[in-house]
Amino acid sequence: MNRSLKLGLAALCSVTVVYVTQAQNGPQTPQQQAEKAVKTRQGLFDVQAFAFGPVGAMLKGAPFDAALVQKQATRIQTTAGMIPEVFALDTRKYPVTTQAREAVWTNKSDFDQKAKNLQSLAAELETAAKAGDRGATLKAAEAVGKACGNCHDDYREKH
Amino acid sequence: MNRSLKLGLAALCSVTVVYVTQAQNGPQTPQQQAEKAVKTRQGLFDVQAFAFGPVGAMLKGAPFDAALVQKQATRIQTTAGMIPEVFALDTRKYPVTTQAREAVWTNKSDFDQKAKNLQSLAAELETAAKAGDRGATLKAAEAVGKACGNCHDDYREKH
Repeated sequence: MNRSLKLGLAALCSVTVVYVTQAQNGPQTPQQQAEKAVKTRQGLFDVQAFAFGPVGAMLKGAPFDAALVQKQATRIQTTAGMIPEVFALDTRKYPVTTQAREAVWTNKSDFDQKAKNLQSLAAELETAAKAGDRGATLKAAEAVGKACGNCHDDYREKH
Repeated sequence: MNRSLKLGLAALCSVTVVYVTQAQNGPQTPQQQAEKAVKTRQGLFDVQAFAFGPVGAMLKGAPFDAALVQKQATRIQTTAGMIPEVFALDTRKYPVTTQAREAVWTNKSDFDQKAKNLQSLAAELETAAKAGDRGATLKAAEAVGKACGNCHDDYREKH
């Protein structure tokens, strides 16, 4: 497929997905609940990536802004607390498109612990940024980024 | 189209969307940035809906749980602060599938003010829940729900 065809198909498909989602009336079927759970999970990580974006940029040389890091750290901390909850529904038996590995549910306590660890590291980042110490803040930011990566290594498909 | 065909198409399409997204290497094109912005926006509202869910249920008669409301109010408050930022990129000129109305950008200051208002109401909900007053908490929860609805009326397409 060439690129424009892929983009066109993607756009058409987005409409279809919206249509399917909107078609629901009344209580959701288990399949619809599973699809909604996947959407919320992916949305949560998109939100976290948005929050970490400017912090990650500072690790790559963007100007240091302690107040901005503090704001984003609060967001990462708060949303990290939601990770175990958005994965509470085990969607393995439903035909959903997801990068979540089976291990999320076969090893849920470790998965939840990793989310809790991210939350703690984000709290440490917030504290460091509040104190305004550039070195400590960037070190804490690196730890947050690594926590994301470590969890992805174990629980997210590469594709 | 029958339902299973629609679901099948939706699943196939999700794969395509993922493929298109993953195909990017290096800097994103403006079109890709616009698509990413839409995804993050929708993800943010999915996250907020997830957080408000149990609170909305209490408004409909589910058992009152002040600690749960307090937790969700913090999440709504923190993520409400992100609304103006995730809409900072004006995606009107890009072919994206979105429920965002033009008014988001033609009337951005009012849109941002409504987000700020949601943030304040969520803070009030948090305070009420922390105090544990059932009546005040449910009243504050209703105000949060109405703030969501009011903003949707003005800025979200009905489809």
